[in-house]
Amino acid sequence: MPMTYKSPLRDLRFVYYELFDGDELARLPGFEDATQDTVEAVLEEMGKIASEVLQPLNGPGDEQGCRLENGAVRAPDGFRDAWKLLREGGWMGLTARPEYGGQGMPYSVGVAASELMIAANLSFSMYVFLTHGAYDALDHHASDELKEMFLPKLVDGSWAGTMCLTESQSGTDLGLVRTRAVDAGDGAWKLTGSKIFISAGDHDLAENIVHLVLARTPDAPPGIKGISMFLVPKLRPEGGRLVPNGVSCPSIEHKLGIKGSATCVIDFDGSTGYLVGEPHKGMRAMFTMMNAARLHVGVQGLALSEAGYQAATAFARERLQGRALTGARYPDQEADPILVHPDVRRMLLSIRAFNEGARALTAWIAMAIDHAESDPDPARREEADDLASLLTPIVKAFQTDLGFEMANVALQVHGGYGYVREYGIEQVVRDARITQIYEGTNGIQALDLVGRKMPAHTGRALRRFFHPVSEFLAAESGNEALAEFTGPLAKAVDRLQRSTLWLATESMKNPEQAGAAATDFLHLFGWTALAYLWARMAKVAQQKLADGGTGLSAEERAFYDAKLRTARFFVERLLPRTSGHFANLMSGSRTMMEFPDSAF
Amino acid sequence: MPMTYKSPLRDLRFVYYELFDGDELARLPGFEDATQDTVEAVLEEMGKIASEVLQPLNGPGDEQGCRLENGAVRAPDGFRDAWKLLREGGWMGLTARPEYGGQGMPYSVGVAASELMIAANLSFSMYVFLTHGAYDALDHHASDELKEMFLPKLVDGSWAGTMCLTESQSGTDLGLVRTRAVDAGDGAWKLTGSKIFISAGDHDLAENIVHLVLARTPDAPPGIKGISMFLVPKLRPEGGRLVPNGVSCPSIEHKLGIKGSATCVIDFDGSTGYLVGEPHKGMRAMFTMMNAARLHVGVQGLALSEAGYQAATAFARERLQGRALTGARYPDQEADPILVHPDVRRMLLSIRAFNEGARALTAWIAMAIDHAESDPDPARREEADDLASLLTPIVKAFQTDLGFEMANVALQVHGGYGYVREYGIEQVVRDARITQIYEGTNGIQALDLVGRKMPAHTGRALRRFFHPVSEFLAAESGNEALAEFTGPLAKAVDRLQRSTLWLATESMKNPEQAGAAATDFLHLFGWTALAYLWARMAKVAQQKLADGGTGLSAEERAFYDAKLRTARFFVERLLPRTSGHFANLMSGSRTMMEFPDSAF
Repeated sequence: MPMTYKSPLRDLRFVYYELFDGDELARLPGFEDATQDTVEAVLEEMGKIASEVLQPLNGPGDEQGCRLENGAVRAPDGFRDAWKLLREGGWMGLTARPEYGGQGMPYSVGVAASELMIAANLSFSMYVFLTHGAYDALDHHASDELKEMFLPKLVDGSWAGTMCLTESQSGTDLGLVRTRAVDAGDGAWKLTGSKIFISAGDHDLAENIVHLVLARTPDAPPGIKGISMFLVPKLRPEGGRLVPNGVSCPSIEHKLGIKGSATCVIDFDGSTGYLVGEPHKGMRAMFTMMNAARLHVGVQGLALSEAGYQAATAFARERLQGRALTGARYPDQEADPILVHPDVRRMLLSIRAFNEGARALTAWIAMAIDHAESDPDPARREEADDLASLLTPIVKAFQTDLGFEMANVALQVHGGYGYVREYGIEQVVRDARITQIYEGTNGIQALDLVGRKMPAHTGRALRRFFHPVSEFLAAESGNEALAEFTGPLAKAVDRLQRSTLWLATESMKNPEQAGAAATDFLHLFGWTALAYLWARMAKVAQQKLADGGTGLSAEERAFYDAKLRTARFFVERLLPRTSGHFANLMSGSRTMMEFPDSAF
Repeated sequence: MPMTYKSPLRDLRFVYYELFDGDELARLPGFEDATQDTVEAVLEEMGKIASEVLQPLNGPGDEQGCRLENGAVRAPDGFRDAWKLLREGGWMGLTARPEYGGQGMPYSVGVAASELMIAANLSFSMYVFLTHGAYDALDHHASDELKEMFLPKLVDGSWAGTMCLTESQSGTDLGLVRTRAVDAGDGAWKLTGSKIFISAGDHDLAENIVHLVLARTPDAPPGIKGISMFLVPKLRPEGGRLVPNGVSCPSIEHKLGIKGSATCVIDFDGSTGYLVGEPHKGMRAMFTMMNAARLHVGVQGLALSEAGYQAATAFARERLQGRALTGARYPDQEADPILVHPDVRRMLLSIRAFNEGARALTAWIAMAIDHAESDPDPARREEADDLASLLTPIVKAFQTDLGFEMANVALQVHGGYGYVREYGIEQVVRDARITQIYEGTNGIQALDLVGRKMPAHTGRALRRFFHPVSEFLAAESGNEALAEFTGPLAKAVDRLQRSTLWLATESMKNPEQAGAAATDFLHLFGWTALAYLWARMAKVAQQKLADGGTGLSAEERAFYDAKLRTARFFVERLLPRTSGHFANLMSGSRTMMEFPDSAF
């Protein structure tokens, strides 16, 4: 039973156009074309490519992996053709500006399309995503000259992109970067150094690769404030030709997963580069890339969990084993499908309730980012930016921690078959594991949340979350039908507010209190955000089903009915985790900090 | 930084001789030699073999895997020599009876030795463990003739063993077994059928392999009541020679992990076999193997988590990145070791608090099994058997769910390095994943607990757990110094008792209530058992440290001090999970059971 993938288009429509007001997107300047019809056509088309082209390459790509031959990396068989197909369909520039050849779709539509691509083939999607990331950073920070030279190539996919941050001594701590950039006198720079863990660092999908490299100039102050960003092409355009630029890939990593994605050591040896943005302000440009990347990695958590759900439900329908506890459900068969067993249903619904909640959370933030970038109203821009900044580390860490957990739940549904390669689910687990690590480990996301996002503007961002939630609870306080959802939501919000207050007070006295609380706080926040969105989704479903859902097709009635039941399952079986996180974080840092170093 | 392993001998001594009264073992008839000196010498020696011989083979064995060549399986390089070394040291028969050439050590000592072997090399340990399992089943159920013929060979390791249960249509549901056994008329049987997922099913470590095979005789009633167990040797002893017996291995599985352990399809084609025990009573013999195997798999969860802890602490000491939140701890270095960060300490102490608790739980059950088998007092035997039966599914499922979780926490401490193969921790994660699946998936363990173990003898087994816990709480009720541990324990016990009562009432009305609650109930039980043992361990540590621990060496003081701090961490940061499990299970089965099949 090889894996297959069916894109969740109905659920995306629900999230974008029934839970949220997706029509607003088409009212943002520049996005007039992004009507519901167009957006759904885009997603349907990407869904087809995901199911028919990318998913069939996923298992073979994992099996074959990337190969370093004669100093050049070859991606798995079939990846070149798929890249070509995406290029020709204009997909590389889906959200890029029309002036550079892009389709000009909103960011949030790109995020929805990404979910489909990732669920079908995370490794392949990495090459596309890194190219988007490089486009974004250059679009925001590069000079017009650089933009004109490089963006059209990235947008049409003839060139690809990377982010070159990490060095062996410098991972989380980018202040330790040693790669050096020396002024070449002609407006260009010469870069020398060695980067590691560079995703899509070298490959044969595109004719050239644009590296965005963090490096240090000779006059740079030490630490993070001395980091600049440079654009370093693998091949340097010179007189209409592409000539070697001292960029090489001496080795690639052998990894637990994402084996179809090349993870490279990239050496720069006097390579010509161009400054992006101002000198010593590299971290600013880096954060543009990083924030988009973090949300994107959160989407990866969701997407792989969705791939897991689909595989697990298919298996649970097919596999006959044992009998329903209340008596044989299919007495004519040798055994019942394992879907009849409560514990199997518990597992499947856990994955589902996470997925649908995470899809809503992802869309909420992605649409906020569109407003933060393009809304004509400055107040709305600020509000949306605050919300997106606050929730980005949560989407990244919470959705990848849960994405990995749920991929494992999906594997567990398969029993022994889950552990063998041919069923494909073990690859999903291996691939999902990286999402908790890259673009800043999840521990770092938690520190970003409590140390940077929460205190910013004296808690203004936090209010962007708590206000709409409180307003919703106030508005629905008399809604008896919704009480089974709003009651538990109110309890979770109360825990989150008390934790926030405690953290704000305690961490002023001792920053280690924040460090010790960070991960549990982030998870408490994640579950509370999902509880809010699930309550809103339940409300939408109840409205659609009012009067027994007359006027709806049987299929549509079933959709809203399942949505409501999944909301209930979420409240009963996932939301109770908030109590553990609350107790954990309130216990403080003392025990862990006083534990003697030598005793570990 | 390749992985190394240091056996936790000091902690094993604490558990066996300070927390529990290990001297009692030497007072059991037949175990007179099992004095503390001997037991510690045994564990020290096994610790050396684990660190120096087995651990260095672990990574290479994973890399090379098993190979099927000309119908025969070859284990990874070095496994044959290691097997020979264990044979020559008498390790294969460590807990076997002296009359068959064994060392006659108690079962619980074998369990402690197993932890060391597994932590160093799970794949290798599988070959040894399956051989022990075959010995056990034959020792309990085979005729004297079969025992005399086969046990000495298993005990000296010249032959190895397997358990052949699963068929492609018959995993959890053994009633679906189709392998047939036909009476050959000469006291032997002819077996025909195909088994899958057979661990250590074929290999080149021993000259012969003894398969214990579940099969169906022509007159057998359908389902589980028609299953018999047969001994089928790979090579049949005939006139002093070993001749082929129609047993073949057509293929081996490609798996997520335990790649050094051969997982085989084993075909029997008219193979000569011998009935073990009575016809149609194969499940009884199978359960002897399964129960020992389940406890053993629980040990695997603990052992891999311990391997993870050691790798993660070593990495956290070495890796320099960032600064302590309260200011540079090592200003002369470029950065501080990541051990200074609260979130890293939180991760390390989570693993440690689980490991030390699980080690105590494992020993408690293992020692109970020794008493159940050998205690001269029938009341003590029954009591011990009840306790071991009750807690075996908990040790299996709880310790492997947490073992996998903690292996992943250990990987997370490594950041990006955790995801690449050369650090070894990703192998630990892959290897650990099988433990949640084999010997009955963890969902099946939970059903065994709520459906079979709890109701047995109208709850008598449950009382074997609750009584000592209540007595302990009553005895310590005035102990102020222990209140930080007994208070949370009492709360957990209360939740567990309320859940038990609810389950007993509800599942009589509707068995699906039990099915829906099972996994959360098992975890609630596991955490409560650990809370009880942690409170007892804290008491021991407090007693040792009374009067400031004068008379203790600095090293010993540090040991008890760390024990006490770890106990505190357990109560603060792990035990709060009970509230979530309690809320989950009390929400009942309705939402998941009423979810329409077609809506999944």
